[in-house]
Amino acid sequence: MPRIVVDVMLKPEILDPQGKAIVGALPRLGFTEFSGVRQGKRFELTVDGEITEAVLAKAREAAETLLSNPVIEDVVKVEAVDD
Amino acid sequence: MPRIVVDVMLKPEILDPQGKAIVGALPRLGFTEFSGVRQGKRFELTVDGEITEAVLAKAREAAETLLSNPVIEDVVKVEAVDD
Repeated sequence: MPRIVVDVMLKPEILDPQGKAIVGALPRLGFTEFSGVRQGKRFELTVDGEITEAVLAKAREAAETLLSNPVIEDVVKVEAVDD
Repeated sequence: MPRIVVDVMLKPEILDPQGKAIVGALPRLGFTEFSGVRQGKRFELTVDGEITEAVLAKAREAAETLLSNPVIEDVVKVEAVDD
């Protein structure tokens, strides 16, 4: 089934406590390569039929109204993916 | 700063109540194009210096040990991204 991936991340200026907790734990587990971690959400929307520009536009609209909180989050990607 | 994106999704056979709730709400909001929604996690790891194969391998290892629960989740992508 054709799918659309939607990625949502916290706005850069918003504190990310989960990301802070992870980046604090990484060195204790032997991972010293990473100076920052931010956590967001990834959605896979299954589409009946073909992914047209109109369907992509509806996915972006759903992303901005239902899948993210525009006050603190940015929709960073809305993309059709092949299986 | 160079970044590595890690995407984690629930294994297909695992029930996704959040995804179910979203796909149930979409038609009420006028979105009828989508037959399924699954929600996962997206991480952005900031790297000091260059992203080498070794750093990517460490990111994958961190993804599989700290950023996901291998019992119920799959790491579906570990990828360097340009700013």
